[in-house]
Amino acid sequence: MGEVIATYRIKGKSGSFEKKAEGIALGLTVGSWTDLPLLEQEQLRKYKGRVVSVEEKEEGPWGEVKIGYPGHNYSNDIPAILTTVFGKLSLDGEVKLLDLEFSEDLKKSFPGPRFGIEGIRQLTGVHGRPLLMSIFKGVIGRDLTFLENQLRAQALGGVNVVKDDEILFDNSLTPFFERVRLGKKVLHDVFEETGSRTLYAVNLTGKTSQLRDKARKARELGADALLFNVFSYGLDVLQELREDPAISLPIMAHPAFAGAVAASPVYGVSYSLWLGKLLRMAGADFSLFPSPYGSVALEKGNVLSISHELTKHDDHLKRTLPVPSAGIHPALVPLLVKDFGTDCVINAGGGIHGHPDGASGGGRAFRQAIDAVLNGRSLQEAAETHEELKKALSLWGGEVKV
Amino acid sequence: MGEVIATYRIKGKSGSFEKKAEGIALGLTVGSWTDLPLLEQEQLRKYKGRVVSVEEKEEGPWGEVKIGYPGHNYSNDIPAILTTVFGKLSLDGEVKLLDLEFSEDLKKSFPGPRFGIEGIRQLTGVHGRPLLMSIFKGVIGRDLTFLENQLRAQALGGVNVVKDDEILFDNSLTPFFERVRLGKKVLHDVFEETGSRTLYAVNLTGKTSQLRDKARKARELGADALLFNVFSYGLDVLQELREDPAISLPIMAHPAFAGAVAASPVYGVSYSLWLGKLLRMAGADFSLFPSPYGSVALEKGNVLSISHELTKHDDHLKRTLPVPSAGIHPALVPLLVKDFGTDCVINAGGGIHGHPDGASGGGRAFRQAIDAVLNGRSLQEAAETHEELKKALSLWGGEVKV
Repeated sequence: MGEVIATYRIKGKSGSFEKKAEGIALGLTVGSWTDLPLLEQEQLRKYKGRVVSVEEKEEGPWGEVKIGYPGHNYSNDIPAILTTVFGKLSLDGEVKLLDLEFSEDLKKSFPGPRFGIEGIRQLTGVHGRPLLMSIFKGVIGRDLTFLENQLRAQALGGVNVVKDDEILFDNSLTPFFERVRLGKKVLHDVFEETGSRTLYAVNLTGKTSQLRDKARKARELGADALLFNVFSYGLDVLQELREDPAISLPIMAHPAFAGAVAASPVYGVSYSLWLGKLLRMAGADFSLFPSPYGSVALEKGNVLSISHELTKHDDHLKRTLPVPSAGIHPALVPLLVKDFGTDCVINAGGGIHGHPDGASGGGRAFRQAIDAVLNGRSLQEAAETHEELKKALSLWGGEVKV
Repeated sequence: MGEVIATYRIKGKSGSFEKKAEGIALGLTVGSWTDLPLLEQEQLRKYKGRVVSVEEKEEGPWGEVKIGYPGHNYSNDIPAILTTVFGKLSLDGEVKLLDLEFSEDLKKSFPGPRFGIEGIRQLTGVHGRPLLMSIFKGVIGRDLTFLENQLRAQALGGVNVVKDDEILFDNSLTPFFERVRLGKKVLHDVFEETGSRTLYAVNLTGKTSQLRDKARKARELGADALLFNVFSYGLDVLQELREDPAISLPIMAHPAFAGAVAASPVYGVSYSLWLGKLLRMAGADFSLFPSPYGSVALEKGNVLSISHELTKHDDHLKRTLPVPSAGIHPALVPLLVKDFGTDCVINAGGGIHGHPDGASGGGRAFRQAIDAVLNGRSLQEAAETHEELKKALSLWGGEVKV
């Protein structure tokens, strides 16, 4: 029988956690137990939550408890599971949902990424190294010509993926479908010139019920990938976009609004579950999250736990590309590769556009840094023969030691 | 021109808040400003966020800043607005979104409740007093006969609304449409016997894209109202259900998972915005939230701020019924009426089912308590001539002094 085991960190008095755990296991399933007639206990046993473990931690005092919820109790979708394991409980004082462990039969019904890391590598032709991504900058209030120039400059620098700004919605200056058409044309032209293919992730926005048709039409028009603000909509909305065979595009999950749920150490859901495990199960091919290095910085342990959930081996689910973001510049590439390996995306905004030679120079500097690291050379050494990297290092400082 | 003004509470060093506010106003709109040529500044001025106010608070130190986001920048839907005002920012350290103020033109496009307090009063025939609601208990793993008996007992006690357990999903023992059919039959029978009409709010669950058709069919089958775990789906999903004329049923928003976003005093979104203003704008006719009295207790200021947002006068939006929940028993009725007035729902689970005479007795005890309070009598006095109330007071203690 299927089961989801939830791990919670709970505040409480020393010695109180066993009782709390029992209260959760019953309160979120059959309601009561010891006062039920034996016959009813027999009938309800398979619906009863079970206390898997209770551990009292020293600090706080805090306890870590694991509760198993039988699969009979909910339909196997994310809204039902979130409501069961963290519905009322989310409102009940200082309690954080750290993890959900799905039994194999339940997990199998989740799609995971359609493309995954290997699929994205095939689409981009990038093997054995991190992908390079860049972000449009300052596009609010700008027209299609502005976007065209920025996209072209970024692509010429050798970035593998360009993503829309997540705060660019459908608007009269740069309508969604026009952006798709423009992206296709510009990136085709760049491919003709350079032989390198860049993907453009267009921001899928609007009313929930219209997303599916917009995404399908985007695909028909030749879109490469979708950017999606999943946490302003809902994880199940992402899953349904992923599952639609008529969409069949890589999906890049943006973490906008995710901090509202995950940022507190005391309340809400852990980063590893929210931006890691659940995004992967629901079907994101890319997951963006704040890097541990930049101005919008997450604590390194949180970041690595997200990345681990996205990329660890799983029998059923393809792997999701981790995209540590914010504050990334070329001098950080050795550190990024050390922390995230080669199966990640190096993603920069200011670190591309702020290059003295513009976005194209910024892209080249990153590519030179990546090549150097993979060839075991220091950035300083590589900079001697690579002008763009040299300029980047003198602007943003030398190689960050690993 | 439309505008949404967001109020944030931010942690920072004394004297740093002006600069932080400017950083948010630019970073979440046009990106940069002072380095733009004057001509571009002219073109982009109407897209630029503006700092409305900056206030440094003593404690913490904390600052409260208000930023205005031009309506040009986003499509007028909740996902776009949340992404704009609290997308990246939700991940950027200790920051809480306290409020959103919508200009009239933007607010007008939100539907608000279809029925509202007056509409629900017409449907139930209850005027001039709080409505009484009760909750199914222990229904996981039970069959339709169990539900039938519980529903009948609750309705016979004179409750005006019965809601499904929010953790009861579509399942083979008590399928969604069977529950709708059963509710219609049982409540019709009770009406024939007593002349009193009770509404049943059935829990609308399943995959996001299927909710609309399920709700439409539920209406065709004679459903009275929908319970909806909006925060496990998304606020825009609620809004689209509300806007569908073929559904046209009262919607009861359950706060499951809302604590993940609202519970922290430091991160996420305020309760008044999350369970109050946004639920009302999106179209909930009822909003449930933890009462300040029970075991799952919210701080009273939070609870009253939710209720205020749901019920304050608005030129465009109907009012939403506040449903303070958890830990409610008959002795609390005077306090509930003092805190929430008569435009609220008194909602009980254990306080109905735990009555010595069962759910029917529990319902009657509540009705007797409500009548007493409205007639200016003390519960003790009323209990002298009302057996069910007397039993309730001796079980749960006497009147809680207001």
